Amino acid sequence: MASSAIETDGQEILDLEKNRQAEKAQWVLNAPEPPSLWRELMDSARETVLPHGKRFPYLKDKDGLFKTVISVLQAMFPIFSWCRHYNATKLRNDLLAGLTLASLCIPQSIGYATLAKLDPQYGLYTSVIPPLIYAVMGTSRDIAIGPVAVVSLLMSSMVPKLEDPEANPIAYRNLVLTTTFFAGIFQAAFGLFRLGFLVDFLSHAAIVGFVSGAAIVIGLQQMKGLLGIAHFTNKTDVISVMQAIWRSVHHYWNPHNFILGCSFLSFIILTRFVGKRNRKLFWLPATAPLISVVLSTLLVYLTRADKHGVMIIKHIKKGLNPGSIHELQFNNPHIGEVAKTGLIVAVIAITEATAVGRSFASIKGYRINGNQEMVAFGFMNILGSFTSCYVATGSFSRSAVNFSAGCETAMSNIVMAITVIISLELFTRFLYFTPIAVLSAIILSALPGLVDPHEAYYIWKVDKLDFLVCIGAFFGVLFASVEIGLLAAVIISFVKIIIISIRPGTEELGRLPGTDIFCDVNQYPMAVKNSKALIIRVKSGLLCFANANFVKEKIMKWATEEEENDSKGKRTVQVVILDMSNLMNIDMSGIASLLELQNNLASGGMELAITNPKWQVIHKLRLANFATKMGGRVFLTVGEAVDMCLGAKMAAV
Amino acid sequence: MASSAIETDGQEILDLEKNRQAEKAQWVLNAPEPPSLWRELMDSARETVLPHGKRFPYLKDKDGLFKTVISVLQAMFPIFSWCRHYNATKLRNDLLAGLTLASLCIPQSIGYATLAKLDPQYGLYTSVIPPLIYAVMGTSRDIAIGPVAVVSLLMSSMVPKLEDPEANPIAYRNLVLTTTFFAGIFQAAFGLFRLGFLVDFLSHAAIVGFVSGAAIVIGLQQMKGLLGIAHFTNKTDVISVMQAIWRSVHHYWNPHNFILGCSFLSFIILTRFVGKRNRKLFWLPATAPLISVVLSTLLVYLTRADKHGVMIIKHIKKGLNPGSIHELQFNNPHIGEVAKTGLIVAVIAITEATAVGRSFASIKGYRINGNQEMVAFGFMNILGSFTSCYVATGSFSRSAVNFSAGCETAMSNIVMAITVIISLELFTRFLYFTPIAVLSAIILSALPGLVDPHEAYYIWKVDKLDFLVCIGAFFGVLFASVEIGLLAAVIISFVKIIIISIRPGTEELGRLPGTDIFCDVNQYPMAVKNSKALIIRVKSGLLCFANANFVKEKIMKWATEEEENDSKGKRTVQVVILDMSNLMNIDMSGIASLLELQNNLASGGMELAITNPKWQVIHKLRLANFATKMGGRVFLTVGEAVDMCLGAKMAAV
Repeated sequence: MASSAIETDGQEILDLEKNRQAEKAQWVLNAPEPPSLWRELMDSARETVLPHGKRFPYLKDKDGLFKTVISVLQAMFPIFSWCRHYNATKLRNDLLAGLTLASLCIPQSIGYATLAKLDPQYGLYTSVIPPLIYAVMGTSRDIAIGPVAVVSLLMSSMVPKLEDPEANPIAYRNLVLTTTFFAGIFQAAFGLFRLGFLVDFLSHAAIVGFVSGAAIVIGLQQMKGLLGIAHFTNKTDVISVMQAIWRSVHHYWNPHNFILGCSFLSFIILTRFVGKRNRKLFWLPATAPLISVVLSTLLVYLTRADKHGVMIIKHIKKGLNPGSIHELQFNNPHIGEVAKTGLIVAVIAITEATAVGRSFASIKGYRINGNQEMVAFGFMNILGSFTSCYVATGSFSRSAVNFSAGCETAMSNIVMAITVIISLELFTRFLYFTPIAVLSAIILSALPGLVDPHEAYYIWKVDKLDFLVCIGAFFGVLFASVEIGLLAAVIISFVKIIIISIRPGTEELGRLPGTDIFCDVNQYPMAVKNSKALIIRVKSGLLCFANANFVKEKIMKWATEEEENDSKGKRTVQVVILDMSNLMNIDMSGIASLLELQNNLASGGMELAITNPKWQVIHKLRLANFATKMGGRVFLTVGEAVDMCLGAKMAAV
Repeated sequence: MASSAIETDGQEILDLEKNRQAEKAQWVLNAPEPPSLWRELMDSARETVLPHGKRFPYLKDKDGLFKTVISVLQAMFPIFSWCRHYNATKLRNDLLAGLTLASLCIPQSIGYATLAKLDPQYGLYTSVIPPLIYAVMGTSRDIAIGPVAVVSLLMSSMVPKLEDPEANPIAYRNLVLTTTFFAGIFQAAFGLFRLGFLVDFLSHAAIVGFVSGAAIVIGLQQMKGLLGIAHFTNKTDVISVMQAIWRSVHHYWNPHNFILGCSFLSFIILTRFVGKRNRKLFWLPATAPLISVVLSTLLVYLTRADKHGVMIIKHIKKGLNPGSIHELQFNNPHIGEVAKTGLIVAVIAITEATAVGRSFASIKGYRINGNQEMVAFGFMNILGSFTSCYVATGSFSRSAVNFSAGCETAMSNIVMAITVIISLELFTRFLYFTPIAVLSAIILSALPGLVDPHEAYYIWKVDKLDFLVCIGAFFGVLFASVEIGLLAAVIISFVKIIIISIRPGTEELGRLPGTDIFCDVNQYPMAVKNSKALIIRVKSGLLCFANANFVKEKIMKWATEEEENDSKGKRTVQVVILDMSNLMNIDMSGIASLLELQNNLASGGMELAITNPKWQVIHKLRLANFATKMGGRVFLTVGEAVDMCLGAKMAAV
């Protein structure tokens, strides 16, 4: 009697357990319908395009027009927020930082303008209007705005294909300004329509490779100034440039230029070492370029070295930025090419600036608003193109100087711009005798910061495929051209995604001792395989045309091989459990393969069970009537599948 | 005392539990190193290229040379296996099936040859050598080999771009034979190097769309014969063909052709209906084309209708396949284009044949060997190109006839080939008066089987994106060209993979009542959200440059919005738990985003915990030192993460 009662109890518990499991299987099968493709597209578009969170926190019905206007203005012009808390201490710090910045910015701007094949004053112009606009609209406190090396290189490598800068400098300049206008339009559009994610398509590894390659190309371009070469190649790849240098060295070069450039390069690098040793002397490396310009200019003026072949800047136009709306060329036959160049420059400029802005923001512990940043960059470049500026963005090296000089807000950019204005009005004629070799030395001295072998090694260590993207961009820039380098990086990145997504890997699962958890037996060597159930998980987020057949074949091979081992007394596979928890989605070919798998297993006397299908997957399996064909062998967890399937087999025996 | 003892016990159990959980977390963190990229590449290449399972089951050291040779021969030529069990009953069935097949094959072959813009006898040649070779080497028992409509269309749409079939028919034919040779080489290479997975890149949906589009194009091409149009366009897109028909209808067409064609088309369709009603009359629709040819030829011969504008075949060369090795042109300037055409034809031919073979094999319950099939197709096309055959493959319609006629083995193909040989030797001159309109009617009558609106609707119902692939291929073939249709399908397929792989979706998890299982709260509405922990899972197999930043922003938005709802007394998020069980892989940008996410959450007073990282992911996180930065908040299951994190928070309070 007693034993029978216990038996009944046991039976009841078993039944209860079975009912619970059946209930859970019903949960899997009767999930509500997932949102339709159309709905998902709309949601995703809305989430992407429309602002996250509250853009206008005070914008409510009950508020008056005034408050609305204020909140819109505050969102568009963050200066209204921060300038209310501005005080004398902050001003003092920003003043110091701004002046330090200006001393570095003036020689760099002139150098980058020559790198972009423009007259020197255009670099200075670009350090006036864009920083002022960014100070009003930007959300980063540390970024230093102005011309930068990589963007200048892009200009000088892409625009000369449309117009020769030496034969027709005015037409070339007009195209550069038009490119700037397009870059601004693209940047503003990215920000206004929340398309910033497009910039993400250039991965970190691609940027590291691209910038390193560009730095080497820029360095080689500087050989022109450093060696005093008059005629140089317009191409940017290493081989053409090396050939040009080699030819020039054999024919004509002036050792005075070289000696002058190298001396001041050594001086600048020396000050950098001193600055690193003694943090209080941070201003020394920052002002070294200006000191070099002043000293070298004096030297050339006093010795009249320009008569002995030392190349000098000569005339720099005095006065503030002239208007340039009338110079924009929208009827140009190359307008499509110009727009394309504008797009590439816009993306590169935003990527560089966002990287700079984010890194300093995370050090100081504030957040920058990515979309507002893009709007700010867009407006500063659009207005810049109206006032003789070419594309400006946040500079790595100058932002670092700004940061170490102790800047507090974007006011340091305003201070810098005012200093540049004063220089444009008063000091341009003093730059007549500045030797070009010294400008080259200043650009060269900024390059080591762009080449980052440590980061490349880190990428190699962590992710070999990302490293492939990195060296793809690097060698593309170095040996082909800037665009090909970028294209190579983007293509390798997407091919990488495809390969990882469809690689037809499978892993066998085992039960972790003492738990109900099933894990990859390779990752967790302590996991125990089931002797009668082969538990397989697909190592991919998709079961689709490209991998479904392969996965099916692999599972069949696995199941039949395990069976053959049986003669050696190892195991008999009775059930194949396919854990679907990885699969985000499945397509028609995937469903067809599952059906074939089930048929093939059935003809070998084995059963197929599936566990934990995700929303889209179970929905499609239901639509394709696969769920009913499975005859109820759809479970929520692997543990349940093992219990139920083997239990049923036992009962049948 | 007692209560204290219970307390101690409770404490001990708690400690034990904690130790167990700590142990499990160590399992996660101390997983062995996954195989290196190089190792994985090698393994994957080996698995892909080398044969699965045992190709030569008797190939062991102790066996003699004789047995080895036998096993190799059996693997290469499956006929040696099945012919040993061949008997009179099987022969009778195969004989019947083969004769039925021949009666359908002869008129279809002639029609497809004219579709491929070749002389009619080339269709018959193609029904001789390839079926014989396939019978010796193939593994399917039901497939019927010979020229097919889609491949003929491919030939007639791609090769005429290189050589005009009307102006220079011999050069055109030589190019077709060379294309056949290349197609054979590609197919054999796919099979020998186990590259069959390349064929998978044409998904089921793409094939459905492509074949439907091609059938419509072929149908329109038949208007030439049906209307008796002398000059027709070489283009294959619908618009060009419609224009050509429109022009011809306005200028000159012969109603006799049309009436003759339509009558016999009606007859063939009628017999098909009869055959469907009465299964015993299966031979009626199968022989209807031959009956039509005989009747119409007699009719034309007796009425001399060819004098009244009815177009007839005229001369068909008598005799067996002539050799054609000397006609292969490897020095042709278009050799690259020819090889490309060969590749496309090879892929399409294999795809069609594999689909046919697999479907009949699964009905009869045997398996076909995909790689051996490709080798067989390769050899039959290579040898075919030496003997005046163009590309042959398995035909949908004729295989179905073969199957319903009760074929047992590939012997039916041999019977068919012998019948065709006899016809070539004896009956060609009787085909002189066969009207072309009847050939067109025969081709037209085979097309409805290729257009499959039900399957297209099924694809639409189950998978909207796959349907996009399907209609991409369909409209590509219809309105552009055959190649563009295929290209469109492949491109859409891969873009689909990229979009699904990197879509930056996230889902919130909740605990299923009465379990320790955490599931998507949308898929399982009964799941209960935790009031203090926000549990998020990424809906993607990859956290990479293209989606990492977006995912980070979304989680931040989610965490901070949930926090804001707190004022309405809803919930306070203290811990964000990121369930990584979906993620197959992560890249540098993904790791950087996780770091930023942790910093951002920390500055909002929240903690980040991660659970169940997969092998590659935890390996990379360890390499990037992220695992140590997480400070031990890496867990195996979500349940443990919730217990530990909230437990620690409670203890701190």
